[in-house]
Amino acid sequence: MSTQKLCAEGLGTALLLIGVVGSGIMAQTLTDDIAVALLANAIATGCTLFFIITVFGPISGAHFNPVVTLAFAFKGEHPWPLAAAYIPVQILGGVAGVWLCHVMFDLDIIQFSTTPRTGMNQWASEIFATFGLLLVIFGGLRSRPDTVPTLVAIYITGAYWFTSSTSFANPAVTIARAFSDTFAGINPAHVVGFIMAQLVGLALALVVLPRLFAHEE
Amino acid sequence: MSTQKLCAEGLGTALLLIGVVGSGIMAQTLTDDIAVALLANAIATGCTLFFIITVFGPISGAHFNPVVTLAFAFKGEHPWPLAAAYIPVQILGGVAGVWLCHVMFDLDIIQFSTTPRTGMNQWASEIFATFGLLLVIFGGLRSRPDTVPTLVAIYITGAYWFTSSTSFANPAVTIARAFSDTFAGINPAHVVGFIMAQLVGLALALVVLPRLFAHEE
Amino acid sequence: MSTQKLCAEGLGTALLLIGVVGSGIMAQTLTDDIAVALLANAIATGCTLFFIITVFGPISGAHFNPVVTLAFAFKGEHPWPLAAAYIPVQILGGVAGVWLCHVMFDLDIIQFSTTPRTGMNQWASEIFATFGLLLVIFGGLRSRPDTVPTLVAIYITGAYWFTSSTSFANPAVTIARAFSDTFAGINPAHVVGFIMAQLVGLALALVVLPRLFAHEE
Amino acid sequence: MSTQKLCAEGLGTALLLIGVVGSGIMAQTLTDDIAVALLANAIATGCTLFFIITVFGPISGAHFNPVVTLAFAFKGEHPWPLAAAYIPVQILGGVAGVWLCHVMFDLDIIQFSTTPRTGMNQWASEIFATFGLLLVIFGGLRSRPDTVPTLVAIYITGAYWFTSSTSFANPAVTIARAFSDTFAGINPAHVVGFIMAQLVGLALALVVLPRLFAHEE
Repeated sequence: MSTQKLCAEGLGTALLLIGVVGSGIMAQTLTDDIAVALLANAIATGCTLFFIITVFGPISGAHFNPVVTLAFAFKGEHPWPLAAAYIPVQILGGVAGVWLCHVMFDLDIIQFSTTPRTGMNQWASEIFATFGLLLVIFGGLRSRPDTVPTLVAIYITGAYWFTSSTSFANPAVTIARAFSDTFAGINPAHVVGFIMAQLVGLALALVVLPRLFAHEE
Repeated sequence: MSTQKLCAEGLGTALLLIGVVGSGIMAQTLTDDIAVALLANAIATGCTLFFIITVFGPISGAHFNPVVTLAFAFKGEHPWPLAAAYIPVQILGGVAGVWLCHVMFDLDIIQFSTTPRTGMNQWASEIFATFGLLLVIFGGLRSRPDTVPTLVAIYITGAYWFTSSTSFANPAVTIARAFSDTFAGINPAHVVGFIMAQLVGLALALVVLPRLFAHEE
Repeated sequence: MSTQKLCAEGLGTALLLIGVVGSGIMAQTLTDDIAVALLANAIATGCTLFFIITVFGPISGAHFNPVVTLAFAFKGEHPWPLAAAYIPVQILGGVAGVWLCHVMFDLDIIQFSTTPRTGMNQWASEIFATFGLLLVIFGGLRSRPDTVPTLVAIYITGAYWFTSSTSFANPAVTIARAFSDTFAGINPAHVVGFIMAQLVGLALALVVLPRLFAHEE
Repeated sequence: MSTQKLCAEGLGTALLLIGVVGSGIMAQTLTDDIAVALLANAIATGCTLFFIITVFGPISGAHFNPVVTLAFAFKGEHPWPLAAAYIPVQILGGVAGVWLCHVMFDLDIIQFSTTPRTGMNQWASEIFATFGLLLVIFGGLRSRPDTVPTLVAIYITGAYWFTSSTSFANPAVTIARAFSDTFAGINPAHVVGFIMAQLVGLALALVVLPRLFAHEE
């Protein structure tokens, strides 16, 4: 039933944000070496993605990401009314996750990031990162569906390092991270730019991937 | 036979504590960067969980954690008398593991931690961490039982970073870690608070998980 | 159809170079500890190899490496005309990946490395690294074909550390890395030496591996 | 045929030592933080174990370790004459690997370690580490044979951290590491103590494991 699916999407996205924001807070507190902090942040995020996708996949499909929900909807594999319900739940779940994280780390619950993340190069990075995420999901579903949780986790762990924006690649995550003035935060004024770039990445994937993955010979 | 099960639970919990406490001692000795130390500690703990659950799973179920044993008992999947035997063996195995660890690292065998780990935010963290651990175990058993050793290992590796308490999530581990005044220790006076929080996490999981994982449609 | 295969080889090699060069740029920017930078670089490269081989394997075979293409051609498992098309596409894809990487990180697009990588010991390292890569690929295909993406990813992650050249082991990657004056770069004057060594590694593998992997008893 | 098996054991053990010693040299060169060096060393060793066991397992059984060969021989699962041939080949392969490593890193080929590794606590650590290695191998073969390469790799990656001796757990590796005055070396005078401890760990495993893994109920 769709209540169960929505609970899974909301809880899973909350857990994703706890993984991303919580590990950033912990790392930032413990070291001055930003590369060590990003390594911990990337590994913890990869771990979180692996377990939320494995556990919630059979219930809701484990999207946790409006771009992923839209991609399935455009491909006709996810009903549009359910997509319209998933997206706000993902956003609310993400914000709730950030707030729970602040409770656990004894920080002010309500806060807004002051970290600038903007500019053409960051947007190029988000277009690329989102395209890559969808490449990995749809390529994995086509060739080895059982490896999708691993593929997404491994992709994002790597993409923290090989994209200049550290690969948000997810509008719900982008919005939620605006609510935390910590390591993983993004200035609320820069959220729209990131989401626009992510939607361009989605459009690119919808055009390129069906051609790339058409049945050969 | 249950002797074999009890040996597996005792030896496995001892190995778990050697993994947690030993890697903490090694890391603390080698670096001043606490994030590097926690990264080594988290990775070594994840490695240990993976091999003890894979190896001992077919013998005892590989609980190594009173909260896990209680959860299976409450769900009617583990007999209560066996649960009553598992729990003290887990605690004794854990303490024995800490002591063997002190022998290997040439430290005083008997010692008590002076590391404070207390307060509402730490308790919130332990409630969350324990709920998450049970979510991963019961969600994994439902969707992909063969991945449970990986799921638990990956969950805890991540949770070292995304919870403020570094996710003890285990009363036997909490008690045993009070016996080591090293990186992974916890002041004995703060053990009861952690265990209470873990039991709240258990109660929350027993209420929420059956609803979340009810057969859909 | 072979257009699809060539697209997969070109896009996959571009992604490989983004993984290698991008993570090097990010790491170099964030830390002064070169071992931390190399650790991030090695982990991100391993992640990239895992997802590109899993996703593109069923389309093109996921070579992304002229030495691998030549090895399959010499073994009669890849047609020579297709090999002749794969190799330039791999090189062009790799260079395009480096340039996209420079866009994402807001660097001059066209640049040439000034990092010296030459000398007998570096060449010995590349001979060994290339032999090891082919050992892992052909050994894996023989014993556990489903693990090849993991094997290659894990091999290269380790080989960044246990070879003095950090294991380029790939002429397309070597050429492309000459186009970036960043962490992963190689002085263009030293490219030929590396490629010669990689071809020696290929020859060694073609002689040794069939004997090593002949059906026993 | 046994020539093929012996080649696999010799080459595999050489690769193991290159993984261990080479990554130690690289790490030591790049950082002053010994924990970062040990992390790289542990990860590279785990990577090496995974690929050598996966690739050579179907040929020779992938022992690469006299203690493992002896354990299979004592259990009647490996003929004694073949064991008598495996052990010297493992030792010679290991030493050859160390020397090739010195060539790659442009160091004096012949050298002897000056790193002290001795004392009761180190020996206790080696007894425990060897017992744990055999527990993981025989427990894994019993419950999930396909995971043995992963189990051994993960066990040793963790055991670098949770044992005070960093888990040599292998007489061939111990002897070969005496031939390198670098990060992973061991003073030749301390080799016999380590090997004695490893044999005690073997004896302990031969007594305990058959009881622990007897078929239950």
